[in-house]
Amino acid sequence: MIDAPRSRYQQVADLIREAIQRGDYAPGSALPSQPTLAGKYGINQTSIGKAIALLRREGLVRVIKGKGAYVREIPPISRYAVTRYAEAVRESGTARGAFDAEMAQRGHESRTELVQWGETVAPQVASDALDLTAGAKVAIRKRHMHADDVPVQIATSYVPWELAKGTAIAEQDTGSGGTYSRLAEAGHTVERFTETIRSRMPTPEEADFLRLDEDQPVYDVLHTAWTAEGRAVEICVHVMPTTQWVLHYEWPAS
Amino acid sequence: MIDAPRSRYQQVADLIREAIQRGDYAPGSALPSQPTLAGKYGINQTSIGKAIALLRREGLVRVIKGKGAYVREIPPISRYAVTRYAEAVRESGTARGAFDAEMAQRGHESRTELVQWGETVAPQVASDALDLTAGAKVAIRKRHMHADDVPVQIATSYVPWELAKGTAIAEQDTGSGGTYSRLAEAGHTVERFTETIRSRMPTPEEADFLRLDEDQPVYDVLHTAWTAEGRAVEICVHVMPTTQWVLHYEWPAS
Repeated sequence: MIDAPRSRYQQVADLIREAIQRGDYAPGSALPSQPTLAGKYGINQTSIGKAIALLRREGLVRVIKGKGAYVREIPPISRYAVTRYAEAVRESGTARGAFDAEMAQRGHESRTELVQWGETVAPQVASDALDLTAGAKVAIRKRHMHADDVPVQIATSYVPWELAKGTAIAEQDTGSGGTYSRLAEAGHTVERFTETIRSRMPTPEEADFLRLDEDQPVYDVLHTAWTAEGRAVEICVHVMPTTQWVLHYEWPAS
Repeated sequence: MIDAPRSRYQQVADLIREAIQRGDYAPGSALPSQPTLAGKYGINQTSIGKAIALLRREGLVRVIKGKGAYVREIPPISRYAVTRYAEAVRESGTARGAFDAEMAQRGHESRTELVQWGETVAPQVASDALDLTAGAKVAIRKRHMHADDVPVQIATSYVPWELAKGTAIAEQDTGSGGTYSRLAEAGHTVERFTETIRSRMPTPEEADFLRLDEDQPVYDVLHTAWTAEGRAVEICVHVMPTTQWVLHYEWPAS
Protein backbone atom coordinates (compact mmCIF):
# COMPACT_ATOMS: atom_id res chain seq x y z
CA MET A 1 0.00 0.00 0.00
CA ILE A 2 1.71 3.19 -1.20
CA ASP A 3 0.56 6.58 0.06
CA ALA A 4 -0.28 9.17 -2.58
CA PRO A 5 2.73 11.37 -3.45
CA ARG A 6 2.81 14.50 -1.31
CA SER A 7 1.56 17.55 -3.12
CA ARG A 8 3.55 20.77 -3.35
CA TYR A 9 1.75 22.51 -0.46
CA GLN A 10 2.34 19.48 1.79
CA GLN A 11 6.04 19.57 0.97
CA VAL A 12 6.15 23.27 1.87
CA ALA A 13 4.24 22.53 5.09
CA ASP A 14 6.98 19.95 5.84
CA LEU A 15 9.67 22.62 5.34
CA ILE A 16 7.89 25.19 7.54
CA ARG A 17 7.29 22.51 10.20
CA GLU A 18 11.00 21.65 10.21
CA ALA A 19 11.90 25.35 10.41
CA ILE A 20 9.65 25.71 13.46
CA GLN A 21 11.14 22.60 15.06
CA ARG A 22 14.67 23.89 14.41
CA GLY A 23 13.69 27.18 16.05
CA ASP A 24 14.06 29.32 12.92
CA TYR A 25 10.59 30.56 13.79
CA ALA A 26 10.54 30.88 17.59
CA PRO A 27 7.60 29.86 19.83
CA GLY A 28 5.04 32.66 19.96
CA SER A 29 6.55 34.60 17.05
CA ALA A 30 4.70 35.65 13.90
CA LEU A 31 5.37 33.71 10.73
CA PRO A 32 6.33 35.88 7.74
CA SER A 33 3.37 37.10 5.68
CA GLN A 34 1.87 34.81 3.05
CA PRO A 35 3.38 36.81 0.13
CA THR A 36 6.81 36.59 1.79
CA LEU A 37 6.45 32.84 2.39
CA ALA A 38 5.19 32.36 -1.19
CA GLY A 39 8.32 34.09 -2.51
CA LYS A 40 10.63 32.18 -0.18
CA TYR A 41 9.24 28.73 -1.00
CA GLY A 42 8.44 29.43 -4.65
CA ILE A 43 4.74 28.54 -4.63
CA ASN A 44 1.64 30.66 -5.02
CA GLN A 45 -0.25 32.21 -2.12
CA THR A 46 -3.16 29.77 -2.42
CA SER A 47 -0.78 26.89 -1.78
CA ILE A 48 0.88 28.75 1.11
CA GLY A 49 -2.60 29.23 2.53
CA LYS A 50 -3.20 25.47 2.33
CA ALA A 51 0.16 24.75 3.98
CA ILE A 52 -0.66 27.13 6.85
CA ALA A 53 -4.11 25.57 7.20
CA LEU A 54 -2.48 22.15 7.54
CA LEU A 55 -0.07 23.37 10.25
CA ARG A 56 -3.00 25.02 12.01
CA ARG A 57 -4.92 21.72 12.08
CA GLU A 58 -1.83 20.11 13.61
CA GLY A 59 -1.79 22.84 16.28
CA LEU A 60 1.65 24.01 15.24
CA VAL A 61 0.49 27.52 14.33
CA ARG A 62 -2.39 29.68 15.45
CA VAL A 63 -4.08 31.91 12.89
CA ILE A 64 -5.43 35.23 14.16
CA LYS A 65 -7.86 36.91 11.79
CA GLY A 66 -6.43 40.08 10.28
CA LYS A 67 -3.07 39.52 11.98
CA GLY A 68 -1.56 36.35 10.55
CA ALA A 69 -0.09 33.05 11.71
CA TYR A 70 1.82 32.61 14.98
CA VAL A 71 4.00 29.72 16.11
CA ARG A 72 2.62 27.66 19.01
CA GLU A 73 4.04 28.84 22.34
CA ILE A 74 3.92 25.56 24.27
CA PRO A 75 4.85 22.14 22.84
CA PRO A 76 2.43 19.25 23.57
CA ILE A 77 2.13 18.60 27.32
CA SER A 78 2.11 15.06 28.73
CA ARG A 79 -0.58 14.24 31.29
CA TYR A 80 0.18 11.08 33.30
CA ALA A 81 -3.23 10.28 34.74
CA VAL A 82 -2.16 7.58 37.18
CA THR A 83 0.74 9.45 38.78
CA ARG A 84 -0.63 13.01 38.72
CA TYR A 85 -2.98 12.54 41.67
CA ALA A 86 -0.30 10.87 43.77
CA GLU A 87 2.08 13.75 43.00
CA ALA A 88 -0.56 16.27 43.89
CA VAL A 89 -1.06 14.83 47.33
CA ARG A 90 2.65 14.41 47.96
CA GLU A 91 3.87 17.76 46.71
CA SER A 92 1.14 20.17 47.53
CA GLY A 93 -1.51 20.96 50.04
CA THR A 94 -3.86 22.47 47.51
CA ALA A 95 -6.35 21.11 45.04
CA ARG A 96 -4.42 22.63 42.15
CA GLY A 97 -1.32 20.62 43.01
CA ALA A 98 -1.54 18.06 40.19
CA PHE A 99 -1.40 20.65 37.43
CA ASP A 100 1.38 22.62 39.16
CA ALA A 101 3.53 19.50 39.54
CA GLU A 102 2.89 18.59 35.90
CA MET A 103 4.00 21.99 34.66
CA ALA A 104 7.02 22.28 36.97
CA GLN A 105 8.37 18.93 35.73
CA ARG A 106 8.14 20.19 32.15
CA GLY A 107 9.72 23.56 32.86
CA HIS A 108 6.59 25.69 32.55
CA GLU A 109 5.29 28.32 34.91
CA SER A 110 1.78 27.30 35.91
CA ARG A 111 -1.02 29.63 36.81
CA THR A 112 -4.46 28.51 37.92
CA GLU A 113 -7.37 30.87 38.25
CA LEU A 114 -10.30 29.67 40.32
CA VAL A 115 -13.20 31.23 38.41
CA GLN A 116 -16.13 29.66 40.29
CA TRP A 117 -16.62 27.79 43.56
CA GLY A 118 -19.35 27.04 46.11
CA GLU A 119 -22.91 25.79 45.74
CA THR A 120 -24.68 25.44 42.39
CA VAL A 121 -27.31 23.34 40.62
CA ALA A 122 -25.68 20.25 39.10
CA PRO A 123 -25.36 20.38 35.31
CA GLN A 124 -26.45 17.17 33.59
CA VAL A 125 -22.93 15.74 33.30
CA ALA A 126 -22.62 15.97 37.10
CA SER A 127 -26.07 14.66 38.02
CA ASP A 128 -25.60 11.72 35.62
CA ALA A 129 -22.10 10.81 36.80
CA LEU A 130 -22.79 11.37 40.52
CA ASP A 131 -26.18 9.62 40.32
CA LEU A 132 -28.10 12.67 41.59
CA THR A 133 -31.68 13.65 40.88
CA ALA A 134 -32.24 16.47 38.40
CA GLY A 135 -31.93 19.85 40.10
CA ALA A 136 -29.77 18.52 42.94
CA LYS A 137 -27.08 20.79 44.37
CA VAL A 138 -23.32 20.30 44.04
CA ALA A 139 -20.17 22.09 45.10
CA ILE A 140 -18.43 23.35 41.96
CA ARG A 141 -14.76 24.29 41.48
CA LYS A 142 -14.02 25.70 38.03
CA ARG A 143 -10.44 26.48 37.15
CA HIS A 144 -8.76 28.19 34.20
CA MET A 145 -5.23 26.87 33.78
CA HIS A 146 -2.26 28.48 32.06
CA ALA A 147 1.23 27.31 31.13
CA ASP A 148 3.63 30.25 30.76
CA ASP A 149 0.51 32.44 30.51
CA VAL A 150 -0.91 30.39 27.62
CA PRO A 151 -4.41 29.04 28.38
CA VAL A 152 -4.18 25.23 28.17
CA GLN A 153 -7.04 23.70 30.20
CA ILE A 154 -10.41 24.25 31.85
CA ALA A 155 -11.07 21.87 34.75
CA THR A 156 -14.41 21.86 36.57
CA SER A 157 -15.03 19.55 39.51
CA TYR A 158 -18.30 18.69 41.20
CA VAL A 159 -19.02 17.08 44.58
CA PRO A 160 -22.56 16.29 45.83
CA TRP A 161 -23.58 19.21 48.05
CA GLU A 162 -24.56 16.86 50.86
CA LEU A 163 -20.91 15.76 51.06
CA ALA A 164 -19.41 19.23 50.53
CA LYS A 165 -21.53 21.47 52.73
CA GLY A 166 -19.85 22.61 55.89
CA THR A 167 -16.43 21.41 54.64
CA ALA A 168 -13.58 23.28 52.94
CA ILE A 169 -14.62 21.63 49.64
CA ALA A 170 -17.15 24.45 49.35
CA GLU A 171 -14.55 27.14 50.17
CA GLN A 172 -12.04 28.97 47.99
CA ASP A 173 -9.19 27.11 49.72
CA THR A 174 -9.93 23.39 50.16
CA GLY A 175 -7.08 23.06 52.67
CA SER A 176 -4.21 20.60 53.05
CA GLY A 177 -4.55 17.61 50.71
CA GLY A 178 -7.50 19.21 48.93
CA THR A 179 -10.92 17.76 48.17
CA TYR A 180 -9.89 14.09 48.46
CA SER A 181 -8.54 14.65 51.98
CA ARG A 182 -11.74 16.42 53.02
CA LEU A 183 -13.81 13.56 51.58
CA ALA A 184 -11.67 10.99 53.45
CA GLU A 185 -12.12 12.89 56.73
CA ALA A 186 -15.88 12.65 56.22
CA GLY A 187 -15.64 8.87 55.69
CA HIS A 188 -15.70 8.89 51.90
CA THR A 189 -12.20 7.66 51.10
CA VAL A 190 -11.54 7.54 47.38
CA GLU A 191 -10.42 4.06 46.35
CA ARG A 192 -10.54 4.09 42.57
CA PHE A 193 -10.48 6.51 39.64
CA THR A 194 -11.99 6.17 36.18
CA GLU A 195 -11.50 8.44 33.18
CA THR A 196 -13.58 8.58 30.02
CA ILE A 197 -12.10 10.38 27.03
CA ARG A 198 -14.12 11.95 24.26
CA SER A 199 -13.16 14.42 21.54
CA ARG A 200 -15.59 17.15 20.57
CA MET A 201 -15.71 20.69 19.26
CA PRO A 202 -15.37 23.43 21.91
CA THR A 203 -18.31 25.49 23.13
CA PRO A 204 -18.04 29.21 22.29
CA GLU A 205 -16.96 29.91 25.89
CA GLU A 206 -14.27 27.19 25.81
CA ALA A 207 -13.04 28.33 22.39
CA ASP A 208 -12.79 31.89 23.68
CA PHE A 209 -10.66 31.02 26.71
CA LEU A 210 -8.55 28.35 24.99
CA ARG A 211 -8.03 30.55 21.87
CA LEU A 212 -9.49 27.91 19.57
CA ASP A 213 -11.57 28.15 16.43
CA GLU A 214 -14.90 26.35 16.41
CA ASP A 215 -13.45 23.55 14.26
CA GLN A 216 -10.50 22.77 16.56
CA PRO A 217 -11.41 19.85 18.82
CA VAL A 218 -10.85 19.44 22.55
CA TYR A 219 -10.44 16.38 24.75
CA ASP A 220 -13.33 16.13 27.18
CA VAL A 221 -11.96 13.91 29.98
CA LEU A 222 -14.49 12.88 32.63
CA HIS A 223 -12.52 11.98 35.77
CA THR A 224 -14.55 10.15 38.44
CA ALA A 225 -13.49 9.31 42.02
CA TRP A 226 -15.12 6.21 43.55
CA THR A 227 -15.32 4.90 47.11
CA ALA A 228 -14.87 1.24 48.05
CA GLU A 229 -18.68 0.98 48.18
CA GLY A 230 -18.84 1.98 44.50
CA ARG A 231 -20.18 5.48 45.09
CA ALA A 232 -19.03 8.30 42.80
CA VAL A 233 -18.13 11.14 45.20
CA GLU A 234 -16.41 13.59 42.86
CA ILE A 235 -16.09 14.20 39.15
CA CYS A 236 -13.86 16.59 37.27
CA VAL A 237 -14.33 17.53 33.62
CA HIS A 238 -11.01 18.41 31.97
CA VAL A 239 -11.28 20.31 28.67
CA MET A 240 -7.99 20.52 26.75
CA PRO A 241 -7.08 21.29 23.12
CA THR A 242 -6.27 17.94 21.47
CA THR A 243 -3.17 19.33 19.77
CA GLN A 244 -1.81 20.68 23.09
CA TRP A 245 -1.96 17.50 25.19
CA VAL A 246 -0.78 13.87 25.13
CA LEU A 247 -2.60 11.53 27.53
CA HIS A 248 -0.85 8.66 29.33
CA TYR A 249 -2.27 5.70 31.27
CA GLU A 250 -0.83 2.55 32.81
CA TRP A 251 -2.11 -0.54 34.59
CA PRO A 252 -0.93 -4.00 35.64
CA ALA A 253 -1.55 -6.97 33.34
CA SER A 254 -3.79 -9.30 35.33
CA MET B 1 -20.62 33.65 31.52
CA ILE B 2 -23.39 33.33 28.91
CA ASP B 3 -22.75 31.51 25.65
CA ALA B 4 -23.50 33.42 22.46
CA PRO B 5 -27.08 32.81 21.23
CA ARG B 6 -27.22 29.89 18.81
CA SER B 7 -27.44 30.98 15.23
CA ARG B 8 -30.14 29.72 12.87
CA TYR B 9 -27.99 27.02 11.26
CA GLN B 10 -27.00 25.69 14.70
CA GLN B 11 -30.66 25.46 15.67
CA VAL B 12 -31.39 23.53 12.48
CA ALA B 13 -28.39 21.27 13.18
CA ASP B 14 -29.98 20.62 16.62
CA LEU B 15 -33.26 19.61 14.95
CA ILE B 16 -31.57 17.28 12.44
CA ARG B 17 -29.44 15.78 15.24
CA GLU B 18 -32.59 15.07 17.27
CA ALA B 19 -34.30 13.58 14.20
CA ILE B 20 -31.31 11.25 13.74
CA GLN B 21 -31.34 10.30 17.42
CA ARG B 22 -35.08 9.59 17.29
CA GLY B 23 -34.47 7.38 14.27
CA ASP B 24 -36.43 9.55 11.79
CA TYR B 25 -33.30 9.27 9.67
CA ALA B 26 -32.07 5.68 10.11
CA PRO B 27 -28.39 4.69 10.54
CA GLY B 28 -26.73 4.39 7.14
CA SER B 29 -29.56 6.10 5.27
CA ALA B 30 -29.22 9.16 3.03
CA LEU B 31 -30.39 12.50 4.41
CA PRO B 32 -32.82 14.34 2.12
CA SER B 33 -31.13 16.65 -0.41
CA GLN B 34 -30.07 20.12 0.67
CA PRO B 35 -32.91 21.84 -1.26
CA THR B 36 -35.43 19.50 0.42
CA LEU B 37 -33.95 20.16 3.88
CA ALA B 38 -33.85 23.90 3.19
CA GLY B 39 -37.58 23.82 2.37
CA LYS B 40 -38.41 21.64 5.36
CA TYR B 41 -36.55 23.79 7.92
CA GLY B 42 -37.22 27.16 6.25
CA ILE B 43 -33.62 28.33 5.84
CA ASN B 44 -31.48 28.84 2.78
CA GLN B 45 -29.20 26.20 1.31
CA THR B 46 -26.04 27.94 2.53
CA SER B 47 -27.26 27.59 6.11
CA ILE B 48 -28.27 23.96 5.52
CA GLY B 49 -24.74 23.40 4.21
CA LYS B 50 -23.32 24.85 7.43
CA ALA B 51 -25.63 22.68 9.55
CA ILE B 52 -24.53 19.55 7.66
CA ALA B 53 -20.87 20.58 8.02
CA LEU B 54 -21.38 20.85 11.79
CA LEU B 55 -22.97 17.38 12.01
CA ARG B 56 -20.14 16.02 9.86
CA ARG B 57 -17.56 17.42 12.29
CA GLU B 58 -19.42 15.69 15.11
CA GLY B 59 -19.24 12.41 13.16
CA LEU B 60 -23.03 12.15 13.00
CA VAL B 61 -23.17 12.25 9.21
CA ARG B 62 -20.74 11.31 6.50
CA VAL B 63 -20.63 13.45 3.35
CA ILE B 64 -19.83 11.65 0.12
CA LYS B 65 -18.84 13.95 -2.74
CA GLY B 66 -21.45 14.03 -5.49
CA LYS B 67 -23.79 11.78 -3.49
CA GLY B 68 -24.83 13.67 -0.37
CA ALA B 69 -24.93 13.17 3.40
CA TYR B 70 -25.46 9.81 5.10
CA VAL B 71 -26.33 9.05 8.73
CA ARG B 72 -23.58 7.36 10.75
CA GLU B 73 -24.05 3.57 10.80
CA ILE B 74 -22.45 2.81 14.19
CA PRO B 75 -22.88 4.90 17.36
CA PRO B 76 -19.71 5.69 19.36
CA ILE B 77 -18.02 2.51 20.60
CA SER B 78 -16.63 2.26 24.14
CA ARG B 79 -13.14 0.82 24.52
CA TYR B 80 -12.34 -0.27 28.10
CA ALA B 81 -8.56 -0.49 27.97
CA VAL B 82 -8.03 -2.21 31.32
CA THR B 83 -10.59 -4.98 30.90
CA ARG B 84 -10.30 -5.64 27.17
CA TYR B 85 -7.07 -7.60 27.42
CA ALA B 86 -8.38 -9.74 30.26
CA GLU B 87 -11.55 -10.48 28.28
CA ALA B 88 -9.50 -11.38 25.25
CA VAL B 89 -7.52 -14.02 27.10
CA ARG B 90 -10.57 -15.43 28.85
CA GLU B 91 -12.95 -15.55 25.91
CA SER B 92 -10.80 -16.32 22.97
CA GLY B 93 -7.76 -18.21 21.89
CA THR B 94 -6.88 -15.72 19.19
CA ALA B 95 -5.06 -12.41 19.07
CA ARG B 96 -8.16 -10.69 17.72
CA GLY B 97 -10.16 -11.65 20.83
CA ALA B 98 -10.27 -8.23 22.52
CA PHE B 99 -11.97 -6.49 19.62
CA ASP B 100 -14.41 -9.38 19.09
CA ALA B 101 -15.45 -9.36 22.76
CA GLU B 102 -15.85 -5.58 22.63
CA MET B 103 -18.14 -5.73 19.62
CA ALA B 104 -20.17 -8.72 20.84
CA GLN B 105 -20.96 -6.92 24.12
CA ARG B 106 -22.26 -3.93 22.16
CA GLY B 107 -24.32 -6.00 19.72
CA HIS B 108 -22.15 -5.54 16.65
CA GLU B 109 -20.83 -8.16 14.27
CA SER B 110 -17.07 -7.87 14.26
CA ARG B 111 -14.83 -8.70 11.35
CA THR B 112 -11.04 -8.48 11.47
CA GLU B 113 -8.90 -8.76 8.39
CA LEU B 114 -5.24 -9.57 8.94
CA VAL B 115 -3.64 -7.53 6.14
CA GLN B 116 0.03 -8.06 6.99
CA TRP B 117 2.06 -10.39 9.21
CA GLY B 118 5.57 -11.80 9.51
CA GLU B 119 9.00 -10.20 9.39
CA THR B 120 9.58 -6.58 8.43
CA VAL B 121 11.91 -3.63 9.14
CA ALA B 122 10.72 -1.73 12.22
CA PRO B 123 9.13 1.64 11.44
CA GLN B 124 10.37 4.46 13.66
CA VAL B 125 7.45 4.25 16.10
CA ALA B 126 8.38 0.61 16.77
CA SER B 127 12.14 1.03 17.01
CA ASP B 128 11.66 3.99 19.39
CA ALA B 129 9.12 2.27 21.63
CA LEU B 130 10.83 -1.13 21.63
CA ASP B 131 14.28 0.43 22.07
CA LEU B 132 15.67 -1.16 18.89
CA THR B 133 18.45 0.11 16.63
CA ALA B 134 17.39 1.70 13.35
CA GLY B 135 16.80 -0.95 10.71
CA ALA B 136 16.15 -3.73 13.23
CA LYS B 137 13.59 -6.40 12.33
CA VAL B 138 10.21 -6.90 13.97
CA ALA B 139 7.24 -9.20 13.59
CA ILE B 140 4.29 -7.13 12.38
CA ARG B 141 0.57 -7.91 12.63
CA LYS B 142 -1.61 -5.34 10.89
CA ARG B 143 -5.36 -5.66 11.19
CA HIS B 144 -8.30 -3.88 9.57
CA MET B 145 -11.30 -4.01 11.88
CA HIS B 146 -14.97 -3.64 11.03
CA ALA B 147 -18.15 -3.34 13.09
CA ASP B 148 -21.21 -4.48 11.11
CA ASP B 149 -19.03 -4.11 7.99
CA VAL B 150 -18.17 -0.48 8.81
CA PRO B 151 -14.39 0.12 9.04
CA VAL B 152 -13.70 1.39 12.57
CA GLN B 153 -10.06 0.69 13.44
CA ILE B 154 -6.58 -0.13 12.16
CA ALA B 155 -4.40 -1.94 14.72
CA THR B 156 -0.77 -2.76 13.99
CA SER B 157 1.35 -4.62 16.50
CA TYR B 158 5.11 -5.08 16.55
CA VAL B 159 7.30 -7.55 18.48
CA PRO B 160 11.12 -7.56 18.28
CA TRP B 161 12.07 -10.21 15.71
CA GLU B 162 14.50 -11.85 18.11
CA LEU B 163 11.52 -12.64 20.38
CA ALA B 164 9.09 -13.55 17.59
CA LYS B 165 11.17 -15.70 15.26
CA GLY B 166 10.39 -19.40 15.40
CA THR B 167 7.20 -18.73 17.42
CA ALA B 168 3.57 -18.44 16.31
CA ILE B 169 3.84 -14.66 16.79
CA ALA B 170 5.30 -14.57 13.30
CA GLU B 171 2.54 -16.80 11.87
CA GLN B 172 -0.92 -15.99 10.57
CA ASP B 173 -2.48 -17.74 13.59
CA THR B 174 -0.69 -16.86 16.86
CA GLY B 175 -2.37 -19.80 18.62
CA SER B 176 -4.22 -20.15 21.93
CA GLY B 177 -3.91 -17.00 24.09
CA GLY B 178 -2.25 -15.09 21.26
CA THR B 179 0.97 -13.09 21.30
CA TYR B 180 1.07 -12.56 25.07
CA SER B 181 0.88 -16.31 25.73
CA ARG B 182 3.69 -16.96 23.25
CA LEU B 183 5.82 -14.26 24.90
CA ALA B 184 5.15 -15.77 28.34
CA GLU B 185 6.16 -19.23 27.12
CA ALA B 186 9.46 -17.73 25.97
CA GLY B 187 10.04 -16.21 29.42
CA HIS B 188 8.82 -12.69 28.61
CA THR B 189 5.69 -12.48 30.74
CA VAL B 190 3.87 -9.19 30.33
CA GLU B 191 3.41 -7.48 33.68
CA ARG B 192 2.23 -3.99 32.87
CA PHE B 193 0.61 -2.03 30.06
CA THR B 194 0.91 1.64 29.16
CA GLU B 195 -1.11 3.61 26.62
CA THR B 196 -0.31 7.01 25.14
CA ILE B 197 -3.11 8.85 23.36
CA ARG B 198 -2.60 11.45 20.67
CA SER B 199 -5.03 12.98 18.18
CA ARG B 200 -3.83 13.67 14.65
CA MET B 201 -5.07 13.88 11.10
CA PRO B 202 -5.20 10.53 9.24
CA THR B 203 -2.64 9.54 6.62
CA PRO B 204 -4.12 9.15 3.10
CA GLU B 205 -4.07 5.35 3.55
CA GLU B 206 -5.85 5.55 6.93
CA ALA B 207 -8.40 8.05 5.59
CA ASP B 208 -9.11 5.74 2.67
CA PHE B 209 -9.79 2.65 4.80
CA LEU B 210 -11.62 4.49 7.61
CA ARG B 211 -13.68 6.57 5.12
CA LEU B 212 -12.45 9.85 6.58
CA ASP B 213 -11.67 13.20 5.02
CA GLU B 214 -8.20 14.62 5.56
CA ASP B 215 -9.52 17.05 8.19
CA GLN B 216 -11.23 14.40 10.36
CA PRO B 217 -8.90 13.41 13.22
CA VAL B 218 -8.05 9.97 14.54
CA TYR B 219 -6.91 8.75 17.94
CA ASP B 220 -3.42 7.32 17.70
CA VAL B 221 -3.15 5.05 20.77
CA LEU B 222 0.29 3.56 21.41
CA HIS B 223 -0.22 0.44 23.54
CA THR B 224 2.98 -0.96 25.10
CA ALA B 225 3.40 -4.28 26.94
CA TRP B 226 6.19 -4.35 29.58
CA THR B 227 7.88 -7.20 31.43
CA ALA B 228 8.71 -7.09 35.15
CA GLU B 229 12.28 -6.16 34.14
CA GLY B 230 10.96 -3.03 32.42
CA ARG B 231 11.49 -4.26 28.88
CA ALA B 232 8.95 -3.30 26.20
CA VAL B 233 8.21 -6.57 24.38
CA GLU B 234 5.25 -5.58 22.22
CA ILE B 235 3.57 -2.43 20.99
CA CYS B 236 0.31 -1.97 19.17
CA VAL B 237 -0.73 1.23 17.40
CA HIS B 238 -4.50 1.65 17.36
CA VAL B 239 -5.85 4.17 14.85
CA MET B 240 -9.52 5.05 15.35
CA PRO B 241 -11.76 7.93 14.20
CA THR B 242 -12.17 10.23 17.21
CA THR B 243 -15.91 10.60 16.63
CA GLN B 244 -16.39 6.80 16.52
CA TRP B 245 -14.75 5.84 19.83
CA VAL B 246 -14.90 6.67 23.54
CA LEU B 247 -11.86 5.61 25.57
CA HIS B 248 -12.12 4.36 29.17
CA TYR B 249 -9.41 3.82 31.82
CA GLU B 250 -9.41 2.97 35.50
CA TRP B 251 -6.87 2.59 38.30
CA PRO B 252 -6.71 2.34 42.09
CA ALA B 253 -6.16 5.50 44.14
CA SER B 254 -2.87 4.94 45.93
